[in-house]
Amino acid sequence: MLTLSVPLGTRTYPIYIGPGLLGQSIHYHRHIPTSQVMVITNETVAPYYLDKVQSALAGKETRVLVLPDGEEYKTLETLNLIIEALLQNHFNRRCTLVALGGGVIGDLVGFAAACYQRGVVFLQIPTTLLAQVDSSVGGKTGVNHPLGKNMIGAFHQPSCVIADILTLNTLPDRQLSAGLAEVIKYGLIGDEPFFRWLETHIHALLQRDPEALIYAIEHSCRDKAKVVAADERESGQRALLNLGHTFGHAIETGLGYGAWLHGEAVAAGICMAARLSVKQGWLLPDDETRIRNLMSVARLPIAPPPELAGVKLMELMSVDKKILSGRLRLVLLKAIGEGLVTEDFDMHHLWTTIEGQ
Amino acid sequence: MLTLSVPLGTRTYPIYIGPGLLGQSIHYHRHIPTSQVMVITNETVAPYYLDKVQSALAGKETRVLVLPDGEEYKTLETLNLIIEALLQNHFNRRCTLVALGGGVIGDLVGFAAACYQRGVVFLQIPTTLLAQVDSSVGGKTGVNHPLGKNMIGAFHQPSCVIADILTLNTLPDRQLSAGLAEVIKYGLIGDEPFFRWLETHIHALLQRDPEALIYAIEHSCRDKAKVVAADERESGQRALLNLGHTFGHAIETGLGYGAWLHGEAVAAGICMAARLSVKQGWLLPDDETRIRNLMSVARLPIAPPPELAGVKLMELMSVDKKILSGRLRLVLLKAIGEGLVTEDFDMHHLWTTIEGQ
Repeated sequence: MLTLSVPLGTRTYPIYIGPGLLGQSIHYHRHIPTSQVMVITNETVAPYYLDKVQSALAGKETRVLVLPDGEEYKTLETLNLIIEALLQNHFNRRCTLVALGGGVIGDLVGFAAACYQRGVVFLQIPTTLLAQVDSSVGGKTGVNHPLGKNMIGAFHQPSCVIADILTLNTLPDRQLSAGLAEVIKYGLIGDEPFFRWLETHIHALLQRDPEALIYAIEHSCRDKAKVVAADERESGQRALLNLGHTFGHAIETGLGYGAWLHGEAVAAGICMAARLSVKQGWLLPDDETRIRNLMSVARLPIAPPPELAGVKLMELMSVDKKILSGRLRLVLLKAIGEGLVTEDFDMHHLWTTIEGQ
Repeated sequence: MLTLSVPLGTRTYPIYIGPGLLGQSIHYHRHIPTSQVMVITNETVAPYYLDKVQSALAGKETRVLVLPDGEEYKTLETLNLIIEALLQNHFNRRCTLVALGGGVIGDLVGFAAACYQRGVVFLQIPTTLLAQVDSSVGGKTGVNHPLGKNMIGAFHQPSCVIADILTLNTLPDRQLSAGLAEVIKYGLIGDEPFFRWLETHIHALLQRDPEALIYAIEHSCRDKAKVVAADERESGQRALLNLGHTFGHAIETGLGYGAWLHGEAVAAGICMAARLSVKQGWLLPDDETRIRNLMSVARLPIAPPPELAGVKLMELMSVDKKILSGRLRLVLLKAIGEGLVTEDFDMHHLWTTIEGQ
């Protein structure tokens, strides 16, 4: 087992990475202050892992809440269901929530933990690659609004993250690929050697080679932790992590949540950011090709769905959180391994990129 | 104008107290970072003060949202309405929310500010005595759940509070009295001289004498700020501020929000806490009488509604946030001016108190 620390002062927490961790009770007992524990998961993940987690929690007063699966349930209504379950079970403010599932469960349960009685402890067991490399680091929690993704939320750090790589064995191919989009992102924004490693190990990752997976997860979490530690509340450089996300969120909102996976939308968004970066004269066209090739091999989309191209996508982008005082801020690429946050790009280039030219 | 500071490190903020302040633009311009401002108020307050606030905000890109009035609207659904209005107006994460109204508006708008895009600036203009002396200090924000009051929320400090005492001239008598319940509370938990001052000035306060009001508001805010500064997240002594609240919340939940005003429920709750304190042999019976007399003169209830007495009230109290690990924690009185937070009381005495004996 590998232990990584996310250094955030009094909110510092460990990420445990390895096979079989979610069945080991030591990780829970170290981080759960009282006996009141609610495990919140979804109907896809529950049949695989809920038993194991419950066994590991033996001795605690454990309750379980199984939610429907899907981004379309990441809403205030589902948050309300969680709060209701906590109140019905008379859970007090020293209770602990355990988020067992992918990014949606992590964001939703994390936000419930942030809000319930103004803040309780939560512990994350991410069961998708995307959740292990992304939402498990940084404490962003929240739910969607029909008018925009992640518009309601809080910064709330977990007390620990248990990244059990065996959970990836039950992950559908499409979900694995979606996770790889975020992994590739870390290489692009600040870690060129990691990007090259990914180019040579993408097949091993697609075949779920344990060693390759551990390497990629550890590397991604480490890269992300570095950025988050320097800028927890996203006043500056943390925005780099949004490479592909302004485009991606617009795609997700435009299609309705759940049509495309988050990672798929981000992959298309990253390709759009790369295209715009080439038009700006920053990124080399050959490097754009390398990015598109890697995404394709990873079985990810490299363009937005045609029905959203043009005006529709631009309109959707204009409600994104990343817009400050009316100016659109984007993460673009100076090179592979060198992202930048900028408002300083040519609007004409943005339009032609959005129109798919 | 009087300026009080609530000292909370990087979250320190001023409270301005005086007549006519809400029409003075200087207070707004000092605390609003960008041009996007949404004033959120209710249909009772809007006709009196919205115009003045809007004039003072001249030059800003101001939007207005008028909500229905009442504790029964302090819900996730209303929160969703606020978020929707912000998104429809393309408000970004550097926008400012202005809460113009009583405690419900303050708690609701504060929570919206805590959650919208994971946190934006907000500014409070409390227009009731209760809001000026209570919710304006300490950053507790949130909404109710049908199963419990303030169960969903966050700690989020305003950037400033503008307590304009002229707004109290339009306050109904019943609301003024409800605010006095919290004022009396500050005397009881830690400020015996203030309690004595209240005994001699209660009529001046009921007649809305400006000098008496300013004295009472300043004193209350100062007392509360001291407690909050020492314990922002309520891990210890901040709980003293909950004198009467565990009983009071149970009354409010049991009657349905809005039937009794918060301050009325707290007044009855304080009298119950005083009764229990006498049974414990702590508070002198004569001092209990002084408390009940002061509440009565202030036109406040001194007992819970008869339909809730007994088992029903006990059941309602058991979901209160103040219960840690199954033990009921209460704020009781050792004397007038000396509150204590304790789990160490005789359950039989609690039962007889609840049954009205």
